[in-house]
Amino acid sequence: MIGTKERYIERLKGYKPKAFVGGERIKDILTDPNTKTIINTVAKTYELAHDPRFEGIMTAESPLTGERVSRLNHVAQSIGDLETRLELTRLMTQSTGTCCGRCGGCTALNVLAATTYAMEKDGIGEYHGRFVDYLKFIHKHDLSCHAATTSPKGDRSKSPLEQDPDLHLRVVEKRRDGIVLRGAKAHQTSAVAVDEMIVYPRQFAKGEEQYAVACAVPNGTEGVTYFLQFNSDDAERRASADTSTLGNPLYGGRQTMLVIYEDVFVPWERVFMCGEVAYTALCSQAARRTHIYNEGPCKAGYGDLILGASKFLAESNGMDKIPHIIEDIVKIISANETTYASALTAARKGSEMPPGSGIFFADERFSVLSKLNANEGFYEVMKAAADVAGGLVVTMPSEKELKDPERRELLLKYLKGRSDIATEDRMRMFKFLNHFIASPHAAQAWIGGGDPYHLRMALYGATDLEEKKKLARSIAFGCE
Amino acid sequence: MIGTKERYIERLKGYKPKAFVGGERIKDILTDPNTKTIINTVAKTYELAHDPRFEGIMTAESPLTGERVSRLNHVAQSIGDLETRLELTRLMTQSTGTCCGRCGGCTALNVLAATTYAMEKDGIGEYHGRFVDYLKFIHKHDLSCHAATTSPKGDRSKSPLEQDPDLHLRVVEKRRDGIVLRGAKAHQTSAVAVDEMIVYPRQFAKGEEQYAVACAVPNGTEGVTYFLQFNSDDAERRASADTSTLGNPLYGGRQTMLVIYEDVFVPWERVFMCGEVAYTALCSQAARRTHIYNEGPCKAGYGDLILGASKFLAESNGMDKIPHIIEDIVKIISANETTYASALTAARKGSEMPPGSGIFFADERFSVLSKLNANEGFYEVMKAAADVAGGLVVTMPSEKELKDPERRELLLKYLKGRSDIATEDRMRMFKFLNHFIASPHAAQAWIGGGDPYHLRMALYGATDLEEKKKLARSIAFGCE
Amino acid sequence: MIGTKERYIERLKGYKPKAFVGGERIKDILTDPNTKTIINTVAKTYELAHDPRFEGIMTAESPLTGERVSRLNHVAQSIGDLETRLELTRLMTQSTGTCCGRCGGCTALNVLAATTYAMEKDGIGEYHGRFVDYLKFIHKHDLSCHAATTSPKGDRSKSPLEQDPDLHLRVVEKRRDGIVLRGAKAHQTSAVAVDEMIVYPRQFAKGEEQYAVACAVPNGTEGVTYFLQFNSDDAERRASADTSTLGNPLYGGRQTMLVIYEDVFVPWERVFMCGEVAYTALCSQAARRTHIYNEGPCKAGYGDLILGASKFLAESNGMDKIPHIIEDIVKIISANETTYASALTAARKGSEMPPGSGIFFADERFSVLSKLNANEGFYEVMKAAADVAGGLVVTMPSEKELKDPERRELLLKYLKGRSDIATEDRMRMFKFLNHFIASPHAAQAWIGGGDPYHLRMALYGATDLEEKKKLARSIAFGCE
Amino acid sequence: MIGTKERYIERLKGYKPKAFVGGERIKDILTDPNTKTIINTVAKTYELAHDPRFEGIMTAESPLTGERVSRLNHVAQSIGDLETRLELTRLMTQSTGTCCGRCGGCTALNVLAATTYAMEKDGIGEYHGRFVDYLKFIHKHDLSCHAATTSPKGDRSKSPLEQDPDLHLRVVEKRRDGIVLRGAKAHQTSAVAVDEMIVYPRQFAKGEEQYAVACAVPNGTEGVTYFLQFNSDDAERRASADTSTLGNPLYGGRQTMLVIYEDVFVPWERVFMCGEVAYTALCSQAARRTHIYNEGPCKAGYGDLILGASKFLAESNGMDKIPHIIEDIVKIISANETTYASALTAARKGSEMPPGSGIFFADERFSVLSKLNANEGFYEVMKAAADVAGGLVVTMPSEKELKDPERRELLLKYLKGRSDIATEDRMRMFKFLNHFIASPHAAQAWIGGGDPYHLRMALYGATDLEEKKKLARSIAFGCE
Repeated sequence: MIGTKERYIERLKGYKPKAFVGGERIKDILTDPNTKTIINTVAKTYELAHDPRFEGIMTAESPLTGERVSRLNHVAQSIGDLETRLELTRLMTQSTGTCCGRCGGCTALNVLAATTYAMEKDGIGEYHGRFVDYLKFIHKHDLSCHAATTSPKGDRSKSPLEQDPDLHLRVVEKRRDGIVLRGAKAHQTSAVAVDEMIVYPRQFAKGEEQYAVACAVPNGTEGVTYFLQFNSDDAERRASADTSTLGNPLYGGRQTMLVIYEDVFVPWERVFMCGEVAYTALCSQAARRTHIYNEGPCKAGYGDLILGASKFLAESNGMDKIPHIIEDIVKIISANETTYASALTAARKGSEMPPGSGIFFADERFSVLSKLNANEGFYEVMKAAADVAGGLVVTMPSEKELKDPERRELLLKYLKGRSDIATEDRMRMFKFLNHFIASPHAAQAWIGGGDPYHLRMALYGATDLEEKKKLARSIAFGCE
Repeated sequence: MIGTKERYIERLKGYKPKAFVGGERIKDILTDPNTKTIINTVAKTYELAHDPRFEGIMTAESPLTGERVSRLNHVAQSIGDLETRLELTRLMTQSTGTCCGRCGGCTALNVLAATTYAMEKDGIGEYHGRFVDYLKFIHKHDLSCHAATTSPKGDRSKSPLEQDPDLHLRVVEKRRDGIVLRGAKAHQTSAVAVDEMIVYPRQFAKGEEQYAVACAVPNGTEGVTYFLQFNSDDAERRASADTSTLGNPLYGGRQTMLVIYEDVFVPWERVFMCGEVAYTALCSQAARRTHIYNEGPCKAGYGDLILGASKFLAESNGMDKIPHIIEDIVKIISANETTYASALTAARKGSEMPPGSGIFFADERFSVLSKLNANEGFYEVMKAAADVAGGLVVTMPSEKELKDPERRELLLKYLKGRSDIATEDRMRMFKFLNHFIASPHAAQAWIGGGDPYHLRMALYGATDLEEKKKLARSIAFGCE
Repeated sequence: MIGTKERYIERLKGYKPKAFVGGERIKDILTDPNTKTIINTVAKTYELAHDPRFEGIMTAESPLTGERVSRLNHVAQSIGDLETRLELTRLMTQSTGTCCGRCGGCTALNVLAATTYAMEKDGIGEYHGRFVDYLKFIHKHDLSCHAATTSPKGDRSKSPLEQDPDLHLRVVEKRRDGIVLRGAKAHQTSAVAVDEMIVYPRQFAKGEEQYAVACAVPNGTEGVTYFLQFNSDDAERRASADTSTLGNPLYGGRQTMLVIYEDVFVPWERVFMCGEVAYTALCSQAARRTHIYNEGPCKAGYGDLILGASKFLAESNGMDKIPHIIEDIVKIISANETTYASALTAARKGSEMPPGSGIFFADERFSVLSKLNANEGFYEVMKAAADVAGGLVVTMPSEKELKDPERRELLLKYLKGRSDIATEDRMRMFKFLNHFIASPHAAQAWIGGGDPYHLRMALYGATDLEEKKKLARSIAFGCE
Repeated sequence: MIGTKERYIERLKGYKPKAFVGGERIKDILTDPNTKTIINTVAKTYELAHDPRFEGIMTAESPLTGERVSRLNHVAQSIGDLETRLELTRLMTQSTGTCCGRCGGCTALNVLAATTYAMEKDGIGEYHGRFVDYLKFIHKHDLSCHAATTSPKGDRSKSPLEQDPDLHLRVVEKRRDGIVLRGAKAHQTSAVAVDEMIVYPRQFAKGEEQYAVACAVPNGTEGVTYFLQFNSDDAERRASADTSTLGNPLYGGRQTMLVIYEDVFVPWERVFMCGEVAYTALCSQAARRTHIYNEGPCKAGYGDLILGASKFLAESNGMDKIPHIIEDIVKIISANETTYASALTAARKGSEMPPGSGIFFADERFSVLSKLNANEGFYEVMKAAADVAGGLVVTMPSEKELKDPERRELLLKYLKGRSDIATEDRMRMFKFLNHFIASPHAAQAWIGGGDPYHLRMALYGATDLEEKKKLARSIAFGCE
């Protein structure tokens, strides 16, 4: 079944998460300014799924039931699925200018489908069946899911057991009816406003079994506390009665949070790994192969918005025909499409994993590359867009001044650009562009979705260097 | 005389500028949150001038009176002055993390000293004497000055006369006792909280005499309106009762404004150019040769703060010994010192202009280069610092949460890094770094102080390419 | 029919091109050191076509005859063909370390297939039938073809008619039985050692009809003169009796030439355009869409060899585990695969052109991007490889010294690396890598296959910026 | 005394070094094509010293004798000396397009002056006096010196004692009258054609005393063998009867060699360190502080030639007014002057070392930076110059073809550019530029003069990060 915005919001009304932002307790996630943006964005995923133009992108046929389900809850069955998934990602960032909030959940479902399948094949039977049941449940209600992956980790020079053991999320008790979780997950996008948080581990070693845990935790579960990030953008929104003068009025910036689990109980039917450290490497690899390649289209989608705003402002400045401005525009296009191309290639070179599972993952090397190219690309985009827009992208007065007729007259006179473009639109676009290029966006892009260093090492590890050495030798020693 | 913070603040009490920020009229610049940061920063220039460690940097001997004056009001008399000026600039950004607010004023005084000298030499006698009198007045009271340079310009594909003529600041009336100004200046840093705004023109052509105007306008003059920028950072500060949780608690971000002149009267004794378009090219060149080379040390000073914060966070993450983190630190150092070196070379290669004037300007080519290297460097710094710091630089919850004991306990537990570093300090430093690398800083650095394209063209124009061609020929055609 | 190396060489024996290199007339292209490398490379295209591992890559089914033909003479019929074409390109550079010599010919056949189709559809009927006959002839004998595209152009600030009209290749006479060509084509890879040169024009304007000429000229036609490039690499090879100490012993560097047409007669059955300037724009676009996307895999193939040699030398230096060396290896991988991914995406997004023709071309935007990424990437590859290899990549003595037993002993002692790697192999690999990273390779990569500026402008022109503006507006003005 | 070209050549006649190049024994260094270029370059250092325009740059007053000596044999006594030294370096590369061959010798003299001074101050008395005597001898005859620094090192994962001990140059015997050297030095520029080779060590540890050796070895000493590098450029020159068609006719490329010491005897009066491992760290630091900062002006000098050639070719192509070509020219200027500025700043921030010695060394951080900026800059220069010049920079036929009247006519017709520029000059300039940007130059620049990794680590080590942390803290915790 494809969910609707209305049913999603109806469900949200039932959740009472314990959440804080800017030093305050959130009273109602449906009306709080810092959570409403998340809800607008997740709601958009439901809306677009019912838009005939985007049905093929936003939905897929579930192999479990034959019914159409949200592609954001779909386990990829083919290279076509991998390709369409990235069209979805770019569509969502193009349509909201922020994280769709369900992308990580999709990753989690794919990761756990593969991992529980591998365990079952190896005779560890309890998890896969449970997972399939859980997936059917998700599909039935088209629930929005979020992935809980990154523990705070504390001092990185120490292993989990060499410091406060709770700095990595862990199982502190196994009961007859379920497990008890303690710890936290950091940088969790949208978690407070989705239906389900799906926990899965990074790679752990023998002796660290308590950390090898995968499970699903519903929104508002007892013992869970959410601390929302509090950037300047978040503060500005919190302080603004009228959102129309904000950079991204409806959807805001990517809203993340620190989610703390204080001895949270999870019943066994929602547990998909508990101690099997040998399978955590597969989780990591699967995550790289399904989540990371989305970084390309995700950032390309932001880049499309920056491109559009830059072109508008170039025109409005009367500079869209100037050679160096055109070169700036080209730089934005190049960065966007280079990362997108890496992602599409990752999809195209995707393959089944584990063999026989029928589950498809993108190629690891090109996945990683899409993220690395997105990182570098975003900073190039920022430079080029700043060059095009000029100083007002930073120094513009508030649009609120326009409410006063006298000040309005002054500002419309002096902030005017090309005469056939409304100065109000110009001011709007400067603020919009400011939101993307003079903000936390780039740093988020750089860090989010995976530490670049480990991705570079994954690229190294996944490249067949012996074959390249052979190629080099065969030509270097060529003889007639 | 070297002014004091106290006298500066005393003077400010007398000014009642008509200023707006975030849709509100500023009631008192001394207490308004968005202007207090400017005042703290300008006050710092007075304080450091009395600090024996920095006296040689912050003050200079006036050739007019033999007395010591603020170096920020000093007209450079030697290469040594040019060198010391950039130490001042770096010291100020290191000490405040923001624009000192008087840097442009210093530029303006140097530009007008040279320009009025050149006019006098050519027989246009009224301006230089007036300017010297004005300079003595500034020195006597150690007034803080700001430069008003950039008109809004509207549609750049049109000349000033092809559109609303007020989009470039101009003289609309010459009276017996003075002139009347109409128009605006954009991106004006600190203007609302300094004593004097010194207007000077960019290059204008014959027929555009009304735009060739230089003069000095005291703070709060009738007819002047200030519209302060309103970025997210500004909004956050405006909404915060307690500034201790802001990124740069005391000094904030660079505060700029649009300053509108609605038929503002300026008496002749404060007018230093009025219609002499032939001398506006000299103004432009002098500005490039005195203002732009400060971009290097200015951004290197910010970079020093980013470097310090990054090193702290690398340690606090337990990652300061990791090779790729060390390489990131090296990138920050390289970017900082490369732009600084270009600036120091600009000073070292400085020369007298106009000949015989005794006024020294930095070398144009290396000035431009310091700015171009600062631009590229700042984005490299941002990437490296984001890499070092990791996700919390964007996703950290508000420090305000710490006021609640229960939440404090949770956050101190889960945001902990290396055990011997206080988690509160760690949180502080994440927010501090956020202020520099996930903010408008880089875009400001890129655009501020001169359009990169025109600077590149200045570098081209000031390079002796014929000499390089000769060198190439003499070797290419070498014969025995 | 798939040709053989033997038949190719047999045909070559019949050609007596008038060719010069290093100031000397080439007596026999089969034995001349500077043309033998071309022949080895073209021969490789025939050999690999008979290698069962590569049959699917190297051959295709001709829609004209249903027979298998060399893919290098194939007109693409599907996206699959576009994808396989780039596998062929990477395979060839991996297998020879140089240009396969027939790549441009493949481009020319595709360009002319589309252009003559378009003309026929518009009622200009004589060319398409002729072209199809010519294609059948090429297929029948599996001839090797080369594309003649770039005229010398002289002073680029002048149009063809404002200077010596011969600086762009043109038709100087139309006879009853054919046309007479005069002019030249520059930078022609391999031309002297292939069977056919296929001429086609860049975009020309009305009034320049004499330049709108496409035709096919067999090797050694009367009036054609070839001047081979003469780089240091070419000089070294020419002076070397023993090729085993050269960087790429069998295949050498990319061998290009200036081909001059002094009133060369071409019969009408080999003429595919003569004066139809309106269709020259299609030629240009088709060339961008079929030739340029090969730049990605072509340079990735070189990059694979550089990668293999770098890894070998890192090991041989005992440095393959050092973090900064691993990062260098990652940079090489990233550059190779980024350009490859752009090319694969160009293929994947390919489409039929003209509509109804059944001829497929790669997407223009991603084609251009593959070349732009190849350009930047190659210089990054060179830096990284130099870093890995160290000084001997430049400073190594000649391997010829090894022939003397005493010198051999000294060199094997002092150029030794890791003890289990033969020092002779190490020396070989240094020279091999030198050939790629301390040579004309990068400059060739940068300039070859299309002027980067015009490609950037093509990327600009082919991007739907209005759609991006709409996206930006719809979010910037979002309202609840 | 300032030497003359004639006396230098007279001395050379007396040397009979055992040297090999391209598999052949060099019969006479004065006439061998691969050593004549070195001699031309070193001779230029003597010539320019007598040119009144350059006297202040090329010579200095010796503090030992009060006489003027070559600045290339001068031990720096002031910051002024450090500054002038880099003017000398840029002048030399501008004047020859290659390494002056004596630069390393200057470094060696400065390094040993400081090191022997430090030893004497610590009571190790024999070396300093000897060194001063040696320096007087050098000054008296104005001998050309070369520094022998880099041992081949073999497997870098092993220490000197874990592999063939000769892979690092060492003392194998201490006799009553002197020491016996065994081992080799790699990448030695010009060694075979200068008067003296001055050996000094890199940093060694306790237990490695045999490697801590500094001494001076005259050209042609018994037991020394030279193996010259043999790049394509070297091969081309070796094979060319007429040098006028080579890239750099008189001075060639940087000529390096592997110098092998087979039990070479050095008398004690020429030994300046023998076993004092504790002082080898000072040698390394002093080398970084006197040699590395020359990389900036050295590469800027090459860059000036590339700039001149690029400008010429831009004009000759009729493209010097095109915006993107101008931007390329700006990139070349920026790269040149950025590295130069880093070097000048290194000089400006220089200081005495050891204290009391009166010997001045450039600042370590800016020295390192000049080299790192030179490295990156050179690749940017190559890209920009290739862009400006276009394909003929790689694909041009040999100028030897011009000797035949018929071929000459054809080539002058078809390689013509702007009509007022001689096509022969254009061809000459393409070959000249080829020599710099399609050659080993960049790789040499990248690797020569110090491994970039260790330089980056030196930059890290020499930066006061604690001070930066303090700066960051003081602002982050700012309170009112």
